[in-house]
Amino acid sequence: MSSTNHQVRLAARPSGLPRSSDWEITEEPTPTPGEGQLVAAVSHISLDPAMRGWMNAGASYIEPVEIGDVMRAAGVGRVTASEHPGFAPGDHVYGTFGVQEFALSDGKGVMKIDPSLAPPPTYLGTLGLSGLTAYFGLLDVGKLGEGDTVAVSGAAGAVGSIAGQIAKLKGARVIGIAGGEAKCRWLIDELGFDAAVDYKSQDVRRELRTHAPGGLDLYFDNVGGEILDAVLANLARGARIVICGAVSQYNATEGVRGPSNYLALLVARASMTGMVIFDYAARFGEASSAIAQWLAEGRLLSREHILEGGVEAFPEALLKLFAGENTGKLVLQIGPA
Amino acid sequence: MSSTNHQVRLAARPSGLPRSSDWEITEEPTPTPGEGQLVAAVSHISLDPAMRGWMNAGASYIEPVEIGDVMRAAGVGRVTASEHPGFAPGDHVYGTFGVQEFALSDGKGVMKIDPSLAPPPTYLGTLGLSGLTAYFGLLDVGKLGEGDTVAVSGAAGAVGSIAGQIAKLKGARVIGIAGGEAKCRWLIDELGFDAAVDYKSQDVRRELRTHAPGGLDLYFDNVGGEILDAVLANLARGARIVICGAVSQYNATEGVRGPSNYLALLVARASMTGMVIFDYAARFGEASSAIAQWLAEGRLLSREHILEGGVEAFPEALLKLFAGENTGKLVLQIGPA
Repeated sequence: MSSTNHQVRLAARPSGLPRSSDWEITEEPTPTPGEGQLVAAVSHISLDPAMRGWMNAGASYIEPVEIGDVMRAAGVGRVTASEHPGFAPGDHVYGTFGVQEFALSDGKGVMKIDPSLAPPPTYLGTLGLSGLTAYFGLLDVGKLGEGDTVAVSGAAGAVGSIAGQIAKLKGARVIGIAGGEAKCRWLIDELGFDAAVDYKSQDVRRELRTHAPGGLDLYFDNVGGEILDAVLANLARGARIVICGAVSQYNATEGVRGPSNYLALLVARASMTGMVIFDYAARFGEASSAIAQWLAEGRLLSREHILEGGVEAFPEALLKLFAGENTGKLVLQIGPA
Repeated sequence: MSSTNHQVRLAARPSGLPRSSDWEITEEPTPTPGEGQLVAAVSHISLDPAMRGWMNAGASYIEPVEIGDVMRAAGVGRVTASEHPGFAPGDHVYGTFGVQEFALSDGKGVMKIDPSLAPPPTYLGTLGLSGLTAYFGLLDVGKLGEGDTVAVSGAAGAVGSIAGQIAKLKGARVIGIAGGEAKCRWLIDELGFDAAVDYKSQDVRRELRTHAPGGLDLYFDNVGGEILDAVLANLARGARIVICGAVSQYNATEGVRGPSNYLALLVARASMTGMVIFDYAARFGEASSAIAQWLAEGRLLSREHILEGGVEAFPEALLKLFAGENTGKLVLQIGPA
């Protein structure tokens, strides 16, 4: 076990895409657990669009990361030392460990994970908040009905790829919106989507009209921006739009672009509803069981896109996320699994 | 009875605010009813923000008015001649009679009204679609709860003034947003609103924060634009936004302004839902009875802003509506009551 803990700390609040000068790589001695504490060696961290929001000043649905703090991140790893009655060295764990090699924790929010069920990085995506977000966004907020025609943006990403597959499992017709032909092929050939629209080379509004001539009953939005407007122009009567995120807008320097077609909500008697996954904490068990079973049965495919390079690679990895370079859940390997 | 029927027809599809050249004043002989038809002398017509949408090409929630057609308008009047078994000369009636002095009708959508209950122009507003829109928008789409803090825009207008009063009747705390000090005073002194914000002279976002420090539970939106964004910045957790209209955007020549604060829906776990009043046709009776009773009991105040000048005054009257010059329901007198 290394005696040094490398960390990524927030050095400045970015304007637009985060730059290398917004980060500071620090090192300090590996922590030692006190009474009621544990230390975990982090093997992988999750890269999330929401990270961009945490870097801004001002409370959103969660407190911002303060300047000088270790950047917040969900991670998986193994307990290396413990003075906590619930954890023992060697335990595989999940927690909000931050972008660092070793995390000191009082155990709050730390969960043991079972690596025989799925590889630890899967707990950062499909068996973690990404899968839960897809599940509750689609079924609870979006009130998916059998026979619905559903569109999902960011469809090749961590949340979108699961949302689309759950919609298929539940009998919906599913159109994925993603960037690039390879992702679109993956959605159709591997995940079983009914259609895919490549927003980088196709006219999304026109393609949606072609693939959903009767309009969309449900739209799971991860991206906002022009794609949201294209969907608004293709709503079926009574459509539900789930606002899960707006990755196209998180780095906007000239203010967020509002959906100029929002009056389509009126014409279609449609709704647009925001969600935050933490509201469903009391029901995480229900969703996790369902997702784990679908995974075990091979009815749900989980893909992790694992980058290497340790904590130093974090700033670049985050930019890859915003550039949409990942297919599936983007994860950074921090240390040995 | 005059032998000439003066009419206002759509001459051109406007860009931005309708100009006089977009209209044509025509005259033709007063119609004579055939088998199953009636003729009504129109006394008053309703001026509605939705009229602007009807002037555009392309179907919305209702077909557009075609070039050369008599402009669509709801009206009240009296039957002058009838070959229809359900109507007799002298009957007071409501119908979509158009901007003209005499309307020929097959009776579809024509309803008898009782002038002893309220003056005929009231049937164009509080006892008509304006009142129904306020009722269902607030109670059904907006799911008003007792103790809710509610904001209403266009609060001194036909729909807003009723929506705010119904919210008060149901135990809510109500903030009206209107243009000008006189309207704001009217909302508080006459209609019993708890607070009013003058968007022409005040910072709406800041005033809402002052009057609703815990955030807004329900927002009834008639205007869109900057005011919608100011409200989005002041939502309580789980807020409901009812999109009834967007009068600030109907004459936009450079595209509709989308709400750039729409991601507040996510942070607040809020929803934004569009409504079209015709969906509630099967329940109009329920709402009309309630509204008529509140009026009779003096718990609901109905105000009509009646312009004179006949059909020739229609183009100017419509501009007064979009300039927000009315307090209460804007009505144009067409002929003798």
